[in-house]
This record gives sequence, structure tokens and C-alpha cells, in this order.
Amino acid sequence: MTAEVVVLRYGHRPGRDDRMTTHVGLTARALGADRVVLPDNAGQSAETVRDITDRFGGPFEVELRDDQRSFTRGWDGTVVHLTMYGERVQDVEADVRADSVASDTPLLVVVGGEKVPFDFYEAADYNVGVTNQPHSEVAGLAVFLDRLFEGAELEREWDDADRVVLPQETGKRVVDPAEAVAERDGAVEGTDDDSDGG
Amino acid sequence: MTAEVVVLRYGHRPGRDDRMTTHVGLTARALGADRVVLPDNAGQSAETVRDITDRFGGPFEVELRDDQRSFTRGWDGTVVHLTMYGERVQDVEADVRADSVASDTPLLVVVGGEKVPFDFYEAADYNVGVTNQPHSEVAGLAVFLDRLFEGAELEREWDDADRVVLPQETGKRVVDPAEAVAERDGAVEGTDDDSDGG
Repeated sequence: MTAEVVVLRYGHRPGRDDRMTTHVGLTARALGADRVVLPDNAGQSAETVRDITDRFGGPFEVELRDDQRSFTRGWDGTVVHLTMYGERVQDVEADVRADSVASDTPLLVVVGGEKVPFDFYEAADYNVGVTNQPHSEVAGLAVFLDRLFEGAELEREWDDADRVVLPQETGKRVVDPAEAVAERDGAVEGTDDDSDGG
Repeated sequence: MTAEVVVLRYGHRPGRDDRMTTHVGLTARALGADRVVLPDNAGQSAETVRDITDRFGGPFEVELRDDQRSFTRGWDGTVVHLTMYGERVQDVEADVRADSVASDTPLLVVVGGEKVPFDFYEAADYNVGVTNQPHSEVAGLAVFLDRLFEGAELEREWDDADRVVLPQETGKRVVDPAEAVAERDGAVEGTDDDSDGG
């Protein structure tokens, strides 16, 4: 059992931000967070992330809230705010890890869009920059999570999936979970070449 | 001198994909690639990435092309195609590194949107999945580059910037390049507290 890692998205303009907010949620899920908190006007993004979780597995929770600021201020654990103005991730990641996943302390990772209020800079235990260059909040979140978990997130297993993608050198292969387990355990042999889609 | 690392974006729907394509370009720049090749209908994204390069520094090139497939097939070097159906990044990253940056061989990293033609799977030396889960091509690119360069990309210096962000525990600090150099070399002392924005 490890303490929860939650990603909070601040700010969302329906329409314009739908895909970015969806990608924040999907990246949080794929790269090891337990939950994403989205602004309450991002219902469409929430629905997409829940749909992916239904199909590809969990556990992963999606929550809509309208109190991002007080939720962050009241967080009982460590708060990281990802911002290009923050300390360099390579300088602080060991400290962040020690104060969160390594000590079973809940971690809130705040991902802003544009114009994040100064409250969040103050509420954060760490303001962290994945480079001090302008790029993408999705990219920053992804690198941050991969470094936080030191790659262990790539080994996670998914529960209650109704489909599983099996890694392939070329082409696409999607199977049901029972088949994936059988193949991993070596119960099914010699099928790779036959079923490699292409 | 190291061989070039180029990111190629396949597919772009003007309007709908502008931000994602821009984020692919900015992420390529921020995380150590030398050049991004965008579809020729992504002129608005190209302009944004060039504008950021003018302001925050380079070198970084942005190119618009209409021949993504033949460009990829004709690439003189190693081709990686990032796809959720590919081999696990943690399993192949050492091989990819050996075949590209570690052996001074040019590397093309293909980042698809939706519906990537099978040509790209075949043209790739490596089809690579940053997880076999659906998430974000921007997130996948970011984690891939950070692992390819083993974090060295975070230490790069930028030429011809007209502004530099100095990492801060709290708040924002943007200075001109001369001031950044002076501060790093210890020529300016005791100014941190005064100029920390807030």
C-alpha cells in the first residue's frame, strides 16, 4: 500500500481546452497517478478518461471539483506545482520523492494551464520546472511522474480491463485479459507469429 | 558534435489539432531535439514554435513538409515510431540509444496523431510504446526524449535568447541573458531576495 498520488488540473476553457485537459487526465492515469481532479466545467474530459479506464483498466478515479484553490491549500500531504518558473526537476526530485511516495505521504501534483494564481505558488511545497522553457503541461507532467516513480509506473498492472494491448515489434495486437495472462505465463506458445496483425 | 535528433509529426487537422501540434514542437525543442518536421498545413503551429525559439533561444529548427511518408522511408539513420502498440520503452531504450545518439547516428522520432498508416510501422526500426495505454503523444514524446538523453537534455544551454527564466522556489523571475550569466558565475550576489517577483 502506498499513499495516493493525485493530479489536479487548474483552469479549463470548455471547447478550447478539452483535449489538453483530457490528455492531462489520461497521462496521469497511464503514468501511475491514482486520481485526477478536474475543474467542474471539464465534464467532457472526465467522461473520456472514465471511458478509457472502463476499457483499459484501473483503478483510477476522476473527480470534478469547483474548489481547486481550497482543495490545494487544504491538502494533507505534499504539494508540487509544476511551472516553468520553478526549481529544476533534476535538483529537487529526490527531495520530492522522499517527502511523498518514499515516505507514504499523499502527493498532490498541480498542473496549471495559463495564468495560475499566485496562491498555488504559495501553497506548493515545491514549485518544479521540467526545464525552465515554455512547452507543454502534459509533457511536464509525464516527465515528472516518470522521474517521481523512477520508471516503476511502467510496470504497473491494470485491473478490470476489457482489453489489453500486447507490445509488438510491428503492427497492433489487442487481446482480452485472459489471453494476455495466459501468454505472459507461457501457457500459450507459438502464437506470436500467427496473430501479429500487420 | 552529435548527430541530429529530429521529431516528425504525422497528421494535422488545422484548428482542431493546432495546440497538440504546437505542444509536440515545443516539447521537441525543450527536451533536446534539434528540429521538428510538421505537416505543411500546420503553419500556425510552426509560427508559434519559431516565435518561442526567437525569444527563449536555440538552435532549433522548424520545417514544414508535405512528404512525411517518403521523408521517413528515406531517412538516413534510425527511425523510432512512438505508438501504444509498440515494444515497451523500458525494454528497448538502451538499444535505441546505442543505435542513435550513442553512435552518432541521426535519429528520426515519428509522433502520430490518429490513424497512422501502416507504412510508418514498417519504416520504423523501432515501434516504441511509452506504456501500452492510450494517453497523449506529447507525454509519450516527452518521456521518450528524457530517457533517450538520460536527462542530459535538462542541462542544455540556449543561444541567442532574449530572455532567461531563473529557477525559483516561489514566484517568477525572468532576466536578460547577460544577467543570467553574471548570476551563474557569481558576479552578482544578494539580488535573489530583491528581485523574486511574487
